[in-house]
Amino acid sequence: MNNNTRPIGIFDSGLGGLTVFKELRALLPGEDLIYFGDTARVPYGTKSAEAVLAFSKEIASFLLGKKIKLLVVACNTASSLALEEIRKLSPVPVLGVIGPGVEAALKAVPAGGRVLVTGTSATVNSRAYSRALAESGPGIKVTEKACPLFVPLVEEGWCSKPVAAIVAREYLAPFRGRTDALILGCTHYPLLKKVIAGVMGPRTKIVDSARAAARSARAELAGRGLLNRARRGRSEFVVSDAPDRFSELAFKLLKIQTGKVSVKRF
Amino acid sequence: MNNNTRPIGIFDSGLGGLTVFKELRALLPGEDLIYFGDTARVPYGTKSAEAVLAFSKEIASFLLGKKIKLLVVACNTASSLALEEIRKLSPVPVLGVIGPGVEAALKAVPAGGRVLVTGTSATVNSRAYSRALAESGPGIKVTEKACPLFVPLVEEGWCSKPVAAIVAREYLAPFRGRTDALILGCTHYPLLKKVIAGVMGPRTKIVDSARAAARSARAELAGRGLLNRARRGRSEFVVSDAPDRFSELAFKLLKIQTGKVSVKRF
Repeated sequence: MNNNTRPIGIFDSGLGGLTVFKELRALLPGEDLIYFGDTARVPYGTKSAEAVLAFSKEIASFLLGKKIKLLVVACNTASSLALEEIRKLSPVPVLGVIGPGVEAALKAVPAGGRVLVTGTSATVNSRAYSRALAESGPGIKVTEKACPLFVPLVEEGWCSKPVAAIVAREYLAPFRGRTDALILGCTHYPLLKKVIAGVMGPRTKIVDSARAAARSARAELAGRGLLNRARRGRSEFVVSDAPDRFSELAFKLLKIQTGKVSVKRF
Repeated sequence: MNNNTRPIGIFDSGLGGLTVFKELRALLPGEDLIYFGDTARVPYGTKSAEAVLAFSKEIASFLLGKKIKLLVVACNTASSLALEEIRKLSPVPVLGVIGPGVEAALKAVPAGGRVLVTGTSATVNSRAYSRALAESGPGIKVTEKACPLFVPLVEEGWCSKPVAAIVAREYLAPFRGRTDALILGCTHYPLLKKVIAGVMGPRTKIVDSARAAARSARAELAGRGLLNRARRGRSEFVVSDAPDRFSELAFKLLKIQTGKVSVKRF
């Protein structure tokens, strides 16, 4: 098999990473994509760095066994806590969502601007976004805010209900009027983009890490001559538990028709 | 060691079962209690029956290794899906939260009354409460309603914020005025008891499975002559991940001072 016809592996703690999958599918229609969701252990956002690292390494090894040409860690928590370790064990390039999200945010703010990073408790506690922003954009003022209710709100399918706006105000109202860019630092959050933008007001740019990560994946493959332009790519979905629920939610939340979802237990 | 000085084992998917622990500690001050919270895999409520069963058996074996005299499955999801299997592998009595909750509900409703069972998706999908209510209280009308946002609301410490009432109304308003008893079918829910009672109105009795389970444990031990009245009991806490977060939340939500929490990974 030519290297460029190999699939791209994508993983997330559950189904949030499907926002990245969807952007990749739109940008790279010719690629084969294998998505893994760790639905037996979701969510990662409230777990320890040690646990997230152990889970991430298991999944990376599983996907590498599928002869992928690129591994996209589509989970902010795993990207924050496990990216370097995964790179050590991977013979193919590994891309997280933090780097691309930071790059996109820096394009969106003026020098000395104010960035608000939203994410799970684990992502925020890791301070991975703050560190990356400080390195790439000296002078940028960064605040991080964990929003643990956002993931279950999305998974409940309540993104357009009034309660979503009330929860968003509870977390974000204090930052309104003093934020140039807000990073959606969790793959579920793009589904709440409208609600979040509504709370923050028109002067805050909302930066979607999922979209940024997909663009970065395309650039990575193009740079290595590994793009697959030949045909219509296939999509494969694997989870560690409850494939039917995954399939149902993928359609309900993102209109993705998964077909048969297989199960790999660890 | 005499049988009656042996500890009682309690387990839950995370920290919700601490509501049962707290009731047990109050009712049985002389007992040694060992609590296990599966914080690496929490929550169970959205996972498959197969996964919940596998996790529960691992934990039961671990606690049985501690020479307990009684095992309390303080998780509604595990009680719904794994109780019979755990009983098969246990040489000591095993108590769930469903049976005691059902018994308490039946005392609270008139013949032909209407019971609403609230719980996680997995508990509700298992229909364990409906089956048990139908067996013990023929003629009782049962409805089950999954309330997936309640657990993260509790863990966020938002039980007294307006958003808690809004979420509770979203789930429960349709049942107001036509419910004689509401079962809190998840160990986190007693922490939202006031909010839930507020939505349901004064004519609905709120049945707390945690309290019912503790009473049932006392009766079980008394019936077997296994009560330990001799001294002030010790409490031990073990989790599968993030002991500091567990300890913090135990105090924040329930004012339980855990002391050192140890870690057992599976």
